[in-house]
Formats: sequence, structure tokens, C-alpha cells
Amino acid sequence: MERETTICALSTASGIGGIAIIRISGNEALAITDKIFQPNNTVPVTNQPAYTLSFGKIMNGDELLDEVIVGVFRSPHSFTGEDTVEISCHGSTYIQQEILKLLIEKGCRLAKPGEFTQRAFLNGKMDLSQAEAVADVIASASKASHRLAINQMRGGFSNELHNLRSQLLQFVSLLELELDFGEEDVEFADRDQLNRLADDIQVIIARLANSFRVGNVLKNGVPVVIVGETNAGKSTLLNLLLNEDKAIVSEIHGTTRDAIEDVINIHGIAFRFIDTAGIRNTNDEVEQIGINRTFTKIDQASIIIWMIDTTHFNAEIEYIADIIVPKTQNKKLIIVFNKIDKISQEEQQILEEEFLPHVPAERIYLSAKYKKNTEKLEKALLKAANLPEVNADDVIVTNLRHYEALTKAVESIERVKNGLQTKLSGDFIAQDIRECMHYLGEITGEITTDEVLGNIFKKFCIGK
Amino acid sequence: MERETTICALSTASGIGGIAIIRISGNEALAITDKIFQPNNTVPVTNQPAYTLSFGKIMNGDELLDEVIVGVFRSPHSFTGEDTVEISCHGSTYIQQEILKLLIEKGCRLAKPGEFTQRAFLNGKMDLSQAEAVADVIASASKASHRLAINQMRGGFSNELHNLRSQLLQFVSLLELELDFGEEDVEFADRDQLNRLADDIQVIIARLANSFRVGNVLKNGVPVVIVGETNAGKSTLLNLLLNEDKAIVSEIHGTTRDAIEDVINIHGIAFRFIDTAGIRNTNDEVEQIGINRTFTKIDQASIIIWMIDTTHFNAEIEYIADIIVPKTQNKKLIIVFNKIDKISQEEQQILEEEFLPHVPAERIYLSAKYKKNTEKLEKALLKAANLPEVNADDVIVTNLRHYEALTKAVESIERVKNGLQTKLSGDFIAQDIRECMHYLGEITGEITTDEVLGNIFKKFCIGK
Repeated sequence: MERETTICALSTASGIGGIAIIRISGNEALAITDKIFQPNNTVPVTNQPAYTLSFGKIMNGDELLDEVIVGVFRSPHSFTGEDTVEISCHGSTYIQQEILKLLIEKGCRLAKPGEFTQRAFLNGKMDLSQAEAVADVIASASKASHRLAINQMRGGFSNELHNLRSQLLQFVSLLELELDFGEEDVEFADRDQLNRLADDIQVIIARLANSFRVGNVLKNGVPVVIVGETNAGKSTLLNLLLNEDKAIVSEIHGTTRDAIEDVINIHGIAFRFIDTAGIRNTNDEVEQIGINRTFTKIDQASIIIWMIDTTHFNAEIEYIADIIVPKTQNKKLIIVFNKIDKISQEEQQILEEEFLPHVPAERIYLSAKYKKNTEKLEKALLKAANLPEVNADDVIVTNLRHYEALTKAVESIERVKNGLQTKLSGDFIAQDIRECMHYLGEITGEITTDEVLGNIFKKFCIGK
Repeated sequence: MERETTICALSTASGIGGIAIIRISGNEALAITDKIFQPNNTVPVTNQPAYTLSFGKIMNGDELLDEVIVGVFRSPHSFTGEDTVEISCHGSTYIQQEILKLLIEKGCRLAKPGEFTQRAFLNGKMDLSQAEAVADVIASASKASHRLAINQMRGGFSNELHNLRSQLLQFVSLLELELDFGEEDVEFADRDQLNRLADDIQVIIARLANSFRVGNVLKNGVPVVIVGETNAGKSTLLNLLLNEDKAIVSEIHGTTRDAIEDVINIHGIAFRFIDTAGIRNTNDEVEQIGINRTFTKIDQASIIIWMIDTTHFNAEIEYIADIIVPKTQNKKLIIVFNKIDKISQEEQQILEEEFLPHVPAERIYLSAKYKKNTEKLEKALLKAANLPEVNADDVIVTNLRHYEALTKAVESIERVKNGLQTKLSGDFIAQDIRECMHYLGEITGEITTDEVLGNIFKKFCIGK
């Protein structure tokens, strides 16, 4: 019944823009639009062919609200699979709001977050993993995360899962055929063949599950913590790493800096820079709380940048070393010696030879102020991230829900393999295979509940 | 030459949204789009009929960047009057940026602020006052300001100016005809008729110029200052005045509160609430600076709301009264007695009778917390604003540039009238009329310079 209602929402970013798009989807989308839209060509929207635009006026009774362009999409050839209208209006929040109010008055309901995409899923335009990828495409801020999301939205992951399910189905069919002839004690399913099939399937599912480590980092950014004293030049360094790409965005959008704050894109990989308070040796209880928080942040990072002001060595250095060095066993450490423009060649050489020579770390000597050697830091970061090159066709899991389902699928398939080895009865093995298929079906949405759908789509923005 | 280039820009609000629109305008708009767009129906955009949509892929070489909808408009039937393409892509900032980069690579230039509208003006799609109204339509946040801007964009003001110019032209033609026969000392132009015409024109121009007071307030909001102690309930009151309309906007856009901060829409009129520090009698020098700033803000407002916590009278009351009461000569004062839920009927009656009985003020007794009597405050604000009802057809000047030009036009027309009275020679009068026409022409853009255009369009957002 929920799906019977025609829904509407602002689909473009919130706020004031040159233009804004209001999207309407559902059985009544065209008819409701006709109640508020006067096309200049006098052809009602209900009579407009699909994929056409028409110019005209949005009227609130006798009053002109705006001059707009209306685009018409007809079921099933639309994003949602339903009749859809997109009203392109002037981008004032007042107009956006008034048009939405009019549409609600004429019979629409304001869409819930992700409801357009949810309808696309429910109408069979895409499976659940593709629907989830729509949100990822919108949130992607780097080339790598974008590539993964687009590939998943286009069905790369779905194809992989589809192949897996076919193989599992073949497997279970053989076993179930045996069960039909159970009393005759025949084995239609060649046990060696089954074993090989189980091995293959396990490898594929495990590969997908394991790709999550990389996928998660590509999606959310490589966590990097910068430690060092306040005047070591941390913020100058961050500004420097904001590469040209980012600068173009800022130019276009005004200040987007706030929204993506310290996520910096280096050669297509997102690095998530985590701010820390300066570390210093202190007995002050309050300050100690701040420093403990810094420790927690260091634990969350996979790369530590330790910035040192080469003109200003002091007693804290050793204290910081004592904290950081033990972490280098499972994290990468990059020591950045800043302000090298202010020291002599000779002094730099002494540093290179004598500064904590036994600590395993990449060492970069740079001048953030004069932009010297910053490309070396970028290279060091990319090397420390240690991420594989991602190709356009690679299927990599980026979604925690998928990862959890895959982990359970791996467990099921391992039980299958054990069952085969211990010569378990075919019906038990078949049950484990069915379970494995169930978990894969959760990813694509073949098996789902309202609660799962609710949890997925509530994270979307309204209008998508 | 500038106009020969094809331009592109993000036209929707900046930031992440469900979808975003990138607009391309110019001779090469269709051809450049074909270089990056693979339509699913395989028909190149250059062959697409006007006013159609086509679905397909944006490719960066071999790599899929996004699946998009492309809308085609053909010269002269587009906003700019040029060939125009609108690409509706997924609303990630990464995709927006990459598509713009691709377009620039293929021969577009990033549009300057307002450049689409500037081209619409230069291509004769609208006059200058209409072009300016486009920005006002986008910025409008209340019914009244929206109505004025839409009317101006639709040409309401232009028609009025056009009529004026026709009358002035008739006037000057008669005079100039006389000049042609100057030596014969004839008067083609009946001086009485000219006087009546000058009177009419003066009335119209003066009415337009005078409408600026109202227009400016409608456009920018009625300035209201709220004074009172911190705990008097100022912010509760502001939240309360945020009416349902506003609440819907917030629901749709997440927190838009920051952007339009304290501009509150009451029955279609915008009120601009100006925050003040609490006023108190102090010898502290630093505090005194803050209080002086409050005085300045009071001077800027046309309405003062003085909020009093009826449960907490103190010595400051008299001090505040001494400051505010002298202002009531040229401002409206509304005294709001808050927290009346906490006092008895009898106490309220004493207040009504005995609180500064001789001070001319509207007095509202309310409970902000329990939303009691707030509609009385709304009515009092509307009454104090003393704004005429604006009809959809009213021509009201909202633009300072127009106001200044009109003021100069009024001066010219006054010189004309003086000239007629003092029987000045026809060529002097004709010159003043030409001057008046010049100022009116500045408004519509018939007379303009690059500098004027530059100043106007630089205030637009990019993408419009």
C-alpha cells in the first residue's frame, strides 16, 4: 500500500542553487503534475511522450510560482520503474518548498530517505547490492571509491554472486537428487567433483570477504594520524596535500572544505587525516585526558605521520618517540622533518644519520612552507597505504553488511567441506549449502525483511 | 570573443545530493557533449531533437564515469538563447568535478558567476532588470519577496519602464519637431499638454522610486531587534516564530537553519531578527563596548521587541526603558511580557495598568514556553511592519541600482517641469528628457557598460 502512493522530494543538494530538481514518482506522477503545471505548448504532461522536456509555469491557483522545465519518464523506463516527473525549477529554497507543498496538497507524499532507490529495487530495476551502491556512488570522494561503487551499481558484484549461486544450485541439485533415491543408496553426485566444486566456491567467497579490508579503506579513506607539536606545521602540511583536484572543487562550490574536512585525495586514493592535540609530557590531569585521546586516535590509524620542526628540537622528542615507536610493529611510521629550508645541508645530514637510526620509518625531509619535497611525502603515503591497484572490473566488497553475510557464507561452505570429508549424509550437506545460498541472497535482496530494507534505506539522503 | 566559447558549470546547489545538474551552453555544447557521452539509444546528442532526454554513460576514455540523463535545448529556444545541454548526474562532488574536468578538456570553459544569465541578456532573451530578477528569484525566502522577483523576471517592471519611455519619446519628438522648425518660432508641442505629460511621468517615476522603501524591506526582511536579559526567553521566542512552513523546509533539507539564520517568515513577510547582547547598567569598559554595539543594532531596526521576564523584575528595567523609550518616536516598540503562565491574573492586570503606562507601545502578554498568545505577537509584528499588501501585478523596486537610476530620472523630469514653467528653450528641455530616458535605459540595459554588467553578474552564483 505504501508503494501505491506517489512520492515527491527535492533530489538535488539542499540549499540555494541556480536550479533545483524536484522528483515525483508513482502512478499519479503525471496526473498530479498536470494539476499544477501549465505547459507553454498546452500539451498536458499526461499526453507528453516519454523522455521529453516541456517548458511552462507552476501555478498555485491563479498565482505564478515559477517558470520551470518538466521532464517526463514513463514506467518502466525510469529510475524507479514507475512514471516519473522531474521538475527543474529556480533553486530558491522558497520555491522548492512551495512546489513540494503544492504537490503534497495535490496528492503526493514526501518521499522517505532512499525511497526512490528502494522502489527501483522493489520494482526489479536493480538488486539490493546495486541499490546500496547508489548511495556509495553519491558519497564517493575519490577515484578508487568511485570506481568500486560505480562497478557495484552496474552489477559487477551481482554477477559474481549470481555465478556463485548457480554453482551452489548445481551442487545442491545433485545432492537432492540423491536424496530422492535415498533408499536405493546411490551417489549421483561424484564426491570428488563435489569436493572440487566446494573448494572453488570457498575460494571465491573467501576472496570476496577478504577484499573487504581493502574495500573498506578505499571507501572510507586510509586513516592517517599526524602527531607532533602545534607549531610543527601540521596545518600547512594538510593544506599542501590538498591537491589541485580539490582546489578546483573549492573554486566551483565555494567552501566545500568543511564537508570533507580532512579527507585528502592523493592520486585517486582517499586519506583520512585525523587531528590530534599536541603530545607533551605532563602531570596535569586535564591535559592528560587530551593526550590519552590522542593515543586512541593513534590506535585507529594505519599510518602515523610524526612531524618534527627541525629548527626546534626539545625534550619532548624522546617522550613522543617512546610512545610512537612501539606502534610501528603493526602501523607504518613516516617521520616528517619540516622546515629544512632553515637548516644547513650539514645539519640535515646529521639528522639523517643520527636521528633514531634504529627505528623503522620512512623519513621525509621537507619544507611545507616552500612546498619542497611534498611529492616525496605523497609517495611515502601511497607506499605505506599498501593498496593494490583497483581495476574497473574488480569486484571488491566495501559494505559491512555484505562482508558479514559473506563471512557467514564462508562458514557455511566450510561446514559443507567438512561434511564431505567426514562423509556426512547428503541432506545435512544440502542444508549447509542452502544456508550459504541464503546468506548470498541477503546481499542481493532475494532474501530480505522490511527491517533490513528499513536499515539500508534510512541511511540514504531524501530525494534519492 | 568571450561569447564564442562554450561554457559549463554545476547549476544545482553545491555539495552532495541525489542528483546534480551540469549545464553547458554555447555553439559547441552538443558537439562537446558527444565527445564524452554514449547514449544508450546510440543517437548522438547533435542529432537529438530539442526538448528531449536521453539516457547513457559519461565515459572518460574507456572508463565509465557515471550513468546520466542528458537534456537537449536548441538555440534560440533555451534559457541562454544558445544550444544548451543539461547533464543530470549522480550528485557526488567527485562526479560533478570529474565531468566538469572532462568538459574543460574537450573545449569548454568554466562559466563565470551569472554568465548563463548574462548570455540570456546579451542574446536578447530578457532585459537587464529581468536578468537581475533571476538572482532575486533564487534568493527569495518569503512569499512577498518571491512575488516581486517573479513579477520583475516576467517583465512587469520592464513593461512599466517601456511605457514610460514611450511617453518620454512622444514628448521629446514633439519638442524636437519644434527645433527643426526653430527659426519659424512655431510651437507644435502644446505647452499645457506637455505639462500634463511631465506631471504624469513624474508621478509614475516618483511612485516607482518611492516603492523602494517597501521593496527593500520586502526583499531583505523587516529589521527587528530583540532586547532584554538573557533569560527573558529570546531564543524560545525565535524558535516559536519559526512557523510550520520553515519547519517543513528544515525537515526536507536537514539543517538549513544556519543559512537563513534568524530571518523568519510570518504570513509571507520576512522579518530579520537581529541578536543583541543583554543590556545592563555597567561600569565595566569591555562590557560597555558590547552594549554600545547593541545600541547601534537598535538604530538599524525598524521594530524593537523588548522582552521582559514577568517573574523576574529588577533594577535593569528602568535603565533599559531610558534607552529604548526615546527611540519610539521613529520606531515601533513591542513590549513582550513573557512567562505569564507563572503569574496570576491579578498580577497581569497590575502589569497592564501600571507598567510604563505613558510609553507608546504594543503590549503582548505571552508564554513562549506554552505557546500562548504568540499569534498576537505575529499580528503585532505585521501591524508594526506597516507594509502594504503586495499583489502579483504590483511593480515595486527592490534593487538599489534601479532606485538610484530612478532617483536621477526623477531629478531630470523635475528639471523638465521647471524648464516648462520658466519657458526654457525646447532644446534644453529635450536634453533633460533624453537624460531621463538614459537613466531608465540603464535599468533595462539599453544603455550599459561592461563595468556595469560586470558588477551586476559577479553577484550571481556560478551556474546561473
